[in-house]
Amino acid sequence: MKIIVDAFGGDHAPLEVLKGCSMAQQEYGVSCVLCGDEDKIRKCAQENSISIEGMEILHAPNVIPVEEDPTTLLKEYADSSMAVGLKTLKEGKGDAFVSAGSTGALVVGASLIVKRMKGVRRVGLATVIPNANGFYLLMDAGANAECRPEMLAQFGVMGSVYLKQLKGVQNPRVGLINIGAEETKGLELQLETYQLLQKAPVNFVGNVEARGLPLGECDVAVADGFTGNVVLKLTEGMGKFFSTELKQMFMSGFKTKMGALLVKSGLDDFKKKMDYKEHGGAPLLGASCPVIKAHGSSDARAFKNAIRQAKEYVENDVITQMQTSLSALKEQTNE
Amino acid sequence: MKIIVDAFGGDHAPLEVLKGCSMAQQEYGVSCVLCGDEDKIRKCAQENSISIEGMEILHAPNVIPVEEDPTTLLKEYADSSMAVGLKTLKEGKGDAFVSAGSTGALVVGASLIVKRMKGVRRVGLATVIPNANGFYLLMDAGANAECRPEMLAQFGVMGSVYLKQLKGVQNPRVGLINIGAEETKGLELQLETYQLLQKAPVNFVGNVEARGLPLGECDVAVADGFTGNVVLKLTEGMGKFFSTELKQMFMSGFKTKMGALLVKSGLDDFKKKMDYKEHGGAPLLGASCPVIKAHGSSDARAFKNAIRQAKEYVENDVITQMQTSLSALKEQTNE
Repeated sequence: MKIIVDAFGGDHAPLEVLKGCSMAQQEYGVSCVLCGDEDKIRKCAQENSISIEGMEILHAPNVIPVEEDPTTLLKEYADSSMAVGLKTLKEGKGDAFVSAGSTGALVVGASLIVKRMKGVRRVGLATVIPNANGFYLLMDAGANAECRPEMLAQFGVMGSVYLKQLKGVQNPRVGLINIGAEETKGLELQLETYQLLQKAPVNFVGNVEARGLPLGECDVAVADGFTGNVVLKLTEGMGKFFSTELKQMFMSGFKTKMGALLVKSGLDDFKKKMDYKEHGGAPLLGASCPVIKAHGSSDARAFKNAIRQAKEYVENDVITQMQTSLSALKEQTNE
Repeated sequence: MKIIVDAFGGDHAPLEVLKGCSMAQQEYGVSCVLCGDEDKIRKCAQENSISIEGMEILHAPNVIPVEEDPTTLLKEYADSSMAVGLKTLKEGKGDAFVSAGSTGALVVGASLIVKRMKGVRRVGLATVIPNANGFYLLMDAGANAECRPEMLAQFGVMGSVYLKQLKGVQNPRVGLINIGAEETKGLELQLETYQLLQKAPVNFVGNVEARGLPLGECDVAVADGFTGNVVLKLTEGMGKFFSTELKQMFMSGFKTKMGALLVKSGLDDFKKKMDYKEHGGAPLLGASCPVIKAHGSSDARAFKNAIRQAKEYVENDVITQMQTSLSALKEQTNE
């Protein structure tokens, strides 16, 4: 299996990307295809003694900056590592694409270079978030600030298939993020989406208030990208806030430092549980080929896990399964 | 000063309400006016040996249920403890009103019985949330699911005045909750609100991503009620999630239990910091008289603090100050 990787995406590129690819090739038996400036890739590998043996390199001289208008990926940055990787994926010269570069550009590229699956209205960003139940899948985590009910219904269906096929969650509970549990709560968007999800081929558990997300009230949390992005970032911020407060508490004196030693293994377990790097990246569900967005601050391990995830995405034939479920959704809702 | 209190609002009414009023009368030298079924109030006070001496009782035989359509407050539930209290406030027979009853009904009552301040488009729920900086004020926390930019600009102005007058925050940093820091981020609502807040008589610090809220990036966080409600409830849920995980960690064995003892005072401090009960209730800013929503699960201490807050609201003449700032907003934005 060939996983195409954007060697120049993310805060620690290309070093951590190359390390992650090298680890993934060894552990998972995949072949990595590196996109980016060939000289720089070879130099970085050599200087850091990273084996890139068996990896193909697709030369792409440019890198699209995170702050750049995402649509420039199609023209000004058509020679960037991300654009070249996506084109290669579309041409069938690889099975999946992983990038830690600009989210906006990757959404544009997944939609317009790789193209959407048949009938899919929008590509959505599906992010796994740790919670009391282990984790839940948030979709859309920020690809589409403005959404229509039909898009949200498709997000629910695609997220459900993804969790089942890739994470082994049986009959995932799909919830709609809303400001109350009752069917009559929310704006027009939530009211209409509720009706569609009731008819959809998923285990719809109704509206879920944001309070229930960390407490594990659903497995797939459906939202427009604005709300989803607020949920994702607030969760990150709360995690940071709590861990800083805890650290201060433990470091405040001799007694508390002793206390910290006694609970260290528990703290480490919790830290691991909250670590996004374990879960790989966020797939762009709805694209016609597997595209995975790795976290911008990914290190080698996070890249390795994102590549493992891409491999599983292909192996489990998630896209065919999604297509089947989306057809059922269409029939059942006449949309 | 007379504080009118809904004796039948909240999960622990009337017992905890009466206790809270009794404590508040002693500590703050206010007079409480109790609204609700007179017999039940007297019986509860007697059975629990709570002194209600010096408290006026306004008989109201009914209670509006939390799950009831909020607008029924105006007709079917016009004889409820909440409706009677709000009418009494409007008639000038008291200085402020405190209720832990239905939020929706209280918003309807504050808008249509007490009425809005001149020029105010919507009454908003302003909630104090603990964060790394101490706390921030979220407005609107859920009174208006759908908002116009002019409403959000007014929320920013009112929230800023409230924090300055009541919490002594000098020059509060007002931020707009958005999905990116750049001026061009967000939906139409955020784009237009950004322009209005730039001209408003507040210390506008621009867009704030949800990640920055617990980390203390602003003092007043402005949002529509849908987004605000998601922020409020996710914050609650994350707090619950973390505290449960921490407890499990500390209780998992002998060693960790010893560890817990060593950090106990730190844990207690943190718990206190995160405790909403310390901050009283959420004022409905924009109403022409002070109306405070206490948390549904309020105990005596929470009611006492909400009454203290109502007293400070009156003493600091927050409403006159808001009116002045709102006039300035109108002039500066031509809205």
